[in-house]
Amino acid sequence: MPIIDNAIYRDGVRDAHPVTLDLTFEALRDHGGFAWIGMYRPTEEELRAVAVEFGLHRLAVEDALKGHQRPKLERFGDTLFVVLRSARYLDAPEEVEFGEVHLFIGPNFAVTIRHAESPDLGRVRKRLEKAPALLTLGPQSVLYAVLDEVVDEYLPVIRGLENDVDEIEDQLFDRDPSVLRRIYELAGETMAFQRATHPLIDMLRSLEAGFAKYNVDIELQRNLRDVLDHSLKVVERADSFRAVLENALTVQSTLVMQRQNEEMRNLSETSIRQGDQVKKISGWAAILFVPTLVAAIYGMNFRYMPELEWTFGYPLALLLMLGSAVSLYFVFKRRDWL
Amino acid sequence: MPIIDNAIYRDGVRDAHPVTLDLTFEALRDHGGFAWIGMYRPTEEELRAVAVEFGLHRLAVEDALKGHQRPKLERFGDTLFVVLRSARYLDAPEEVEFGEVHLFIGPNFAVTIRHAESPDLGRVRKRLEKAPALLTLGPQSVLYAVLDEVVDEYLPVIRGLENDVDEIEDQLFDRDPSVLRRIYELAGETMAFQRATHPLIDMLRSLEAGFAKYNVDIELQRNLRDVLDHSLKVVERADSFRAVLENALTVQSTLVMQRQNEEMRNLSETSIRQGDQVKKISGWAAILFVPTLVAAIYGMNFRYMPELEWTFGYPLALLLMLGSAVSLYFVFKRRDWL
Amino acid sequence: MPIIDNAIYRDGVRDAHPVTLDLTFEALRDHGGFAWIGMYRPTEEELRAVAVEFGLHRLAVEDALKGHQRPKLERFGDTLFVVLRSARYLDAPEEVEFGEVHLFIGPNFAVTIRHAESPDLGRVRKRLEKAPALLTLGPQSVLYAVLDEVVDEYLPVIRGLENDVDEIEDQLFDRDPSVLRRIYELAGETMAFQRATHPLIDMLRSLEAGFAKYNVDIELQRNLRDVLDHSLKVVERADSFRAVLENALTVQSTLVMQRQNEEMRNLSETSIRQGDQVKKISGWAAILFVPTLVAAIYGMNFRYMPELEWTFGYPLALLLMLGSAVSLYFVFKRRDWL
Amino acid sequence: MPIIDNAIYRDGVRDAHPVTLDLTFEALRDHGGFAWIGMYRPTEEELRAVAVEFGLHRLAVEDALKGHQRPKLERFGDTLFVVLRSARYLDAPEEVEFGEVHLFIGPNFAVTIRHAESPDLGRVRKRLEKAPALLTLGPQSVLYAVLDEVVDEYLPVIRGLENDVDEIEDQLFDRDPSVLRRIYELAGETMAFQRATHPLIDMLRSLEAGFAKYNVDIELQRNLRDVLDHSLKVVERADSFRAVLENALTVQSTLVMQRQNEEMRNLSETSIRQGDQVKKISGWAAILFVPTLVAAIYGMNFRYMPELEWTFGYPLALLLMLGSAVSLYFVFKRRDWL
Amino acid sequence: MPIIDNAIYRDGVRDAHPVTLDLTFEALRDHGGFAWIGMYRPTEEELRAVAVEFGLHRLAVEDALKGHQRPKLERFGDTLFVVLRSARYLDAPEEVEFGEVHLFIGPNFAVTIRHAESPDLGRVRKRLEKAPALLTLGPQSVLYAVLDEVVDEYLPVIRGLENDVDEIEDQLFDRDPSVLRRIYELAGETMAFQRATHPLIDMLRSLEAGFAKYNVDIELQRNLRDVLDHSLKVVERADSFRAVLENALTVQSTLVMQRQNEEMRNLSETSIRQGDQVKKISGWAAILFVPTLVAAIYGMNFRYMPELEWTFGYPLALLLMLGSAVSLYFVFKRRDWL
Ligand SMILES: [Mg+2]
Ligand SMILES: [Mg+2]
Ligand SMILES: [Mg+2]
Ligand SMILES: [Mg+2]
Ligand SMILES: [Mg+2]
Ligand SMILES: [Mg+2]
Ligand SMILES: [Mg+2]
Ligand SMILES: [Mg+2]
Ligand SMILES: [Mg+2]
Ligand SMILES: [Mg+2]
Ligand SMILES: [Mg+2]
Ligand SMILES: [Mg+2]
Ligand SMILES: [Mg+2]
Ligand SMILES: [Mg+2]
Ligand SMILES: [Mg+2]
Ligand SMILES: [Mg+2]
Ligand SMILES: [Mg+2]
Ligand SMILES: [Mg+2]
Ligand SMILES: [Mg+2]
Ligand SMILES: [Mg+2]
Ligand SMILES: [Mg+2]
Ligand SMILES: [Mg+2]
Ligand SMILES: [Mg+2]
Ligand SMILES: [Mg+2]
Ligand SMILES: [Mg+2]
Ligand SMILES: [Mg+2]
Ligand SMILES: [Mg+2]
Ligand SMILES: [Mg+2]
Ligand SMILES: [Mg+2]
Ligand SMILES: [Mg+2]
Ligand SMILES: [Mg+2]
Repeated sequence: MPIIDNAIYRDGVRDAHPVTLDLTFEALRDHGGFAWIGMYRPTEEELRAVAVEFGLHRLAVEDALKGHQRPKLERFGDTLFVVLRSARYLDAPEEVEFGEVHLFIGPNFAVTIRHAESPDLGRVRKRLEKAPALLTLGPQSVLYAVLDEVVDEYLPVIRGLENDVDEIEDQLFDRDPSVLRRIYELAGETMAFQRATHPLIDMLRSLEAGFAKYNVDIELQRNLRDVLDHSLKVVERADSFRAVLENALTVQSTLVMQRQNEEMRNLSETSIRQGDQVKKISGWAAILFVPTLVAAIYGMNFRYMPELEWTFGYPLALLLMLGSAVSLYFVFKRRDWL
Repeated sequence: MPIIDNAIYRDGVRDAHPVTLDLTFEALRDHGGFAWIGMYRPTEEELRAVAVEFGLHRLAVEDALKGHQRPKLERFGDTLFVVLRSARYLDAPEEVEFGEVHLFIGPNFAVTIRHAESPDLGRVRKRLEKAPALLTLGPQSVLYAVLDEVVDEYLPVIRGLENDVDEIEDQLFDRDPSVLRRIYELAGETMAFQRATHPLIDMLRSLEAGFAKYNVDIELQRNLRDVLDHSLKVVERADSFRAVLENALTVQSTLVMQRQNEEMRNLSETSIRQGDQVKKISGWAAILFVPTLVAAIYGMNFRYMPELEWTFGYPLALLLMLGSAVSLYFVFKRRDWL
Repeated sequence: MPIIDNAIYRDGVRDAHPVTLDLTFEALRDHGGFAWIGMYRPTEEELRAVAVEFGLHRLAVEDALKGHQRPKLERFGDTLFVVLRSARYLDAPEEVEFGEVHLFIGPNFAVTIRHAESPDLGRVRKRLEKAPALLTLGPQSVLYAVLDEVVDEYLPVIRGLENDVDEIEDQLFDRDPSVLRRIYELAGETMAFQRATHPLIDMLRSLEAGFAKYNVDIELQRNLRDVLDHSLKVVERADSFRAVLENALTVQSTLVMQRQNEEMRNLSETSIRQGDQVKKISGWAAILFVPTLVAAIYGMNFRYMPELEWTFGYPLALLLMLGSAVSLYFVFKRRDWL
Repeated sequence: MPIIDNAIYRDGVRDAHPVTLDLTFEALRDHGGFAWIGMYRPTEEELRAVAVEFGLHRLAVEDALKGHQRPKLERFGDTLFVVLRSARYLDAPEEVEFGEVHLFIGPNFAVTIRHAESPDLGRVRKRLEKAPALLTLGPQSVLYAVLDEVVDEYLPVIRGLENDVDEIEDQLFDRDPSVLRRIYELAGETMAFQRATHPLIDMLRSLEAGFAKYNVDIELQRNLRDVLDHSLKVVERADSFRAVLENALTVQSTLVMQRQNEEMRNLSETSIRQGDQVKKISGWAAILFVPTLVAAIYGMNFRYMPELEWTFGYPLALLLMLGSAVSLYFVFKRRDWL
Repeated sequence: MPIIDNAIYRDGVRDAHPVTLDLTFEALRDHGGFAWIGMYRPTEEELRAVAVEFGLHRLAVEDALKGHQRPKLERFGDTLFVVLRSARYLDAPEEVEFGEVHLFIGPNFAVTIRHAESPDLGRVRKRLEKAPALLTLGPQSVLYAVLDEVVDEYLPVIRGLENDVDEIEDQLFDRDPSVLRRIYELAGETMAFQRATHPLIDMLRSLEAGFAKYNVDIELQRNLRDVLDHSLKVVERADSFRAVLENALTVQSTLVMQRQNEEMRNLSETSIRQGDQVKKISGWAAILFVPTLVAAIYGMNFRYMPELEWTFGYPLALLLMLGSAVSLYFVFKRRDWL
């Protein structure tokens, strides 16, 4: 059912709740006051009756049906057409989920068209119905109340982003390589959030510029300035998150290199120590080869080998072995092979 | 044939379709209305007749003949000269292909000169001929209709770019090194698209600023504001793609380094394990060298080798071999060579 | 106790110090002058009496109770509502600690509400009470004096940040890898400080723009311009710290790479030298294998080995050993294996 | 010779070509029209006569003598002083070569002072002399014509830069490390070109702003707007080259790292394969050591070695050798040493 | 001595040089003209006499005593207070040294207060005293002359920086790692120079904006515009140095990586060649082990070894040795171990 609520307000109170739109239009024509019609993703036909009755402009109606608009504020004669993008933070996937609401604000009507679950327009209506002073100001009070709700809903997004940015800062210096993807994705979400919130500043400033011309009630002016103040805070924080995430990206790349340096230093040290041991083992083995050769020589079976007959042949051979090994030891030591 | 279509419109309907330009000019002078002449890459002579009849300015004509202009809007007396760059997205090579259209909008004529296949001006004409209310507004309705078409044609480009940016994000974390070139080239295409679309904002704002002075119909004003709104959306998205692609570039460079770290760690581990095995093998071999030397010594054939005559010479030699090997084993173990 | 001080000033001097707020309001109504009420984190009820008496606006009161506002200046009728964020530099943890003060400046009152230990409003009051000429100008003098204090308190922050930036520059080229985290965190603090100080410029400029309209005393104008001058200095320095820290981040990443190059060169040289030694040792060992083989051959016990019977068998074998070793030596040398 | 050309124009045609400057001044005073004096790097004395006659301002004359000025436009009474920097692209060294021209445009004179070979003012004069309608507008037509020439001469620079940027893009992904220097240097040239061309936009806009006040001919206005249009194109392209070259710089750094990764992977694979072979060779050698030791033991010459007397001593020894080698083989296999 | 010079100027010439300030004030009151008092770091008391006589504002006097101000221009009634920062380039340490001068420009006085050796105000005074036409314009001529000097002194700084930037570009591609620190420090100096020079543009533009209101002499206007022109040149060059140094920083980081790649390739090649040699040497040694084992077997002394008795035992053994070695050679070759 695309019509969520449909009521007529007079002198700051909810006066009638006609069962059909036609009764609403009739009551409005006969008894004055203003109608606030809340719709959810209406079809073309559903919106047509309203558009015809209130003289909504074709181009605005087109946008309201299609959705996926950027936040904007357009004036068609005495009707204001406003697009707002609300936001919710989904903490588990670290994603900002966007809603969209379109408003037609005319002299005696306010039409609100939601394209997503958020913002919570039921809450807005309840709050506004408890503030007759505000409601007395007419359809503009609906505009203010929806703006206020949308901007208030940005604050938990800011808190959620801030929290994740803080976690990222901790993770960054804890050597967790997955932080890179997290930074990248959170930066993407932040950019999307900036696109949704940034246009609000200019919209509210252009509303402000029209205060005098359109004779806006002074209290409403102040309320709208309050919304602007909160929007500025939101935009400023989102900007700062992007700057921090950009720095974090640079820092992560340097940290990765620092870790590579440590890795490399470790590898160096281990592999040089290992190389040194292999060198020494080989060196000692090589030293043993010479006496082995000497022994092999005197183990040959030639008939005529005079040394074999010498009385001191054997000790001399042993001395030769020892001498050659010791000489080699010193040669190797001098060459730093041992 | 450079003249694509050539018709006279009166009171919002297509009234005449003269076979030659001269007939068009004559009909226009005699019976009023406005002419819409559509050309495709005319030569100098082909354009001259039109220029002379409608008093088109030499400088604008020069640009219209030469093409390759940046988007712009120039006023020559009561004639407006407008250059627009349309765009098409070629998904396979991931390239943005640009078209160009020049418009002369005068009091009783609209001359459209295409320099490429796009934008689809035939479609524009058909759509406009079905909207007599708009056509009644005269040549300005042609300006609006072409602007609307050109900006509408940007939307598939935005969708194509968005799709490829999303693919790049996935590819990025899937370790595909070719993503780098893709990011770079898509960034280049995005920049070219920004150059084509960005000037539109100022053009439409300057048109808007002239609404009061040139007494533009209120409905046309709103239609042009709608085009501006779509242009803002296009420009904003293109800007966001560039920001995302820039982040992706930074992320890719850090990812490459992270992969190098892993590569390095793998190499380290493998080569250190290998080095350890070589060291142990060498160590065991070295341990065998000493008993071998002992055996070689007692294999020598010296006549006077007293140990050979000992009753327990052989077992003692074996013990010596074993002892030296075991000692070496402990020395090597202590030195961490085994 | 939320009320810190509560006095009435007349003709530039502290005239009364009523014990309750009600007495203050009464005295004000009866005898004129202006009240300066200083509060510290008041509860809603505590602030209500003041708000009712002076007609403070609901939205401003809300902000004043909630705190955590961005610096701003809002006009409600003839009352000015100002939010300022003071700052202190904690040198040990290298953190900027922020305070917050809210001011209501009306025709005959100044209400200052502190949300943190800083700024030192007691000092402001003492200083102002010693400057009767200034106090004569009424509640605006309180606004000036608090602005001056807040901005003066920024200067030690600037000095503290400058000092740490200088230390970081030294540390950077001293190869201390922990500098990366320090740069990152100081950049974060600097950004937070920029968020606190940057809005001041626009606030003071908007005050300046109202000088003529609100008939501000010329001396007060000059004093406020002086505060603006100091604010500009603060903002400019903070901006320059960020630029320097960003450069330092880039430099650190290049330095890390340069160090990796050196590390790598060292590893290369050591491991190549080591490899060369192992190669040579193996080469020499291999050279010894051939004569050992020859000796082993002539140590075989075959009955029919003619060489063994030769008179010159033994010297010929030795020559064969020597010859093969020398040949191998030259082969290895030629192959660069030794 | 510093005076290149010196002519008087009346009613759009070249009327006189006096041989000396004094004759020019006399003719001008007696018969009206305007003089166009073209000079090339005049000395102070050479310029003085002109300055005195036409009342050129000391500061402008100083600049015109000194050269090396930034592009600018200054008004001294009814004389305009304009500095322009022309540019030529030297394709071989990939350098932008700058020229400089100074113009004094007064009520009845145009003095053009060239400081380099370009721009080609001879061509400008010839072209202008063929356009009497333009020349009739007086010295302002000279200003336009020189501006047009200078901006037209920028187009080949844009084409040259574009060509080299395209080459760089190809080279980038072709693994040519020298591309880095090329990018850096072309970025430097592009920046210098931006410095020369960027001020033109503001100059032409300020000329435009004075159109109404100085009663500039409408055709000249349009001509100057055309020059502005071309300048915008030039400036926009130069800006885009810088953006592309900056991206190319980032891409090159990531490509260098990707190549390092490949290099590393190759090194890893080769060195691990090599290490494996050395390990296996050593392992097989170590396996042979044990039977060799057994053989050496039974080659000892002890008198009392019972095994030697056994009938099956020899086959048992062979079995022992084989058995020990096979055992070792399985041990090594299990330890992954073979 | 804080008073450097103290003179009265009338009708464009230096008319009196009173020995004390009191005489100066008296002479000024009695005979008109204007005083130019030059001071160097005056104490509070020293400046008080001047401040009282000329009615200098307390806030400006405070700044003038304290120094370390940012460049600015403030109007106090009919007195202008100007702060300028001069600069000198120290080529050896590559540092920009800043000076500071404060000016009070009133209807009949100019007070210049130097806080450093530069700018050279003596030279300014001498030059001005030689330009009576300028001096006739009164204290404003002093303001112009000091501005001109300060800006002229920036030009050698620009030349010095340019020179070092050029050297850095050469050093960059000459593989000198110390260039990194040099770039970083020169960037720091350039930023400081930008902070000193950038505010001048706005100052001179705000002076320009007051030309009409304060009825400034046309020649003085032109002179000040000339100073503005030179300031723009200085600011533009400084900006370009920063852009170049930033590029150089990026390039240096990529160059470091390219060098690492080369280093790595060298290491790869050398260590792979070395590994290959060790492998071959080990392989050849292993081949020799088998014939050695055969020889060792036939060197055993078993009584019953039938082969030893064979007539062709010896040649068969040799064949066995050769055969096994050759077989191994082919096995190793096939396995790529040789
Ligand atoms: Mg996610
Ligand atoms: Mg709210
Ligand atoms: Mg979370
Ligand atoms: Mg995403
Ligand atoms: Mg609030
Ligand atoms: Mg609220
Ligand atoms: Mg492509
Ligand atoms: Mg459209
Ligand atoms: Mg695709
Ligand atoms: Mg391309
Ligand atoms: Mg729309
Ligand atoms: Mg549409
Ligand atoms: Mg900290
Ligand atoms: Mg202060
Ligand atoms: Mg510290
Ligand atoms: Mg923090
Ligand atoms: Mg001050
Ligand atoms: Mg690396
Ligand atoms: Mg070059
Ligand atoms: Mg041209
Ligand atoms: Mg080329
Ligand atoms: Mg260069
Ligand atoms: Mg053109
Ligand atoms: Mg042209
Ligand atoms: Mg230095
Ligand atoms: Mg100068
Ligand atoms: Mg130097
Ligand atoms: Mg230094
Ligand atoms: Mg420094
Ligand atoms: Mg000059
Ligand atoms: Mg000068």
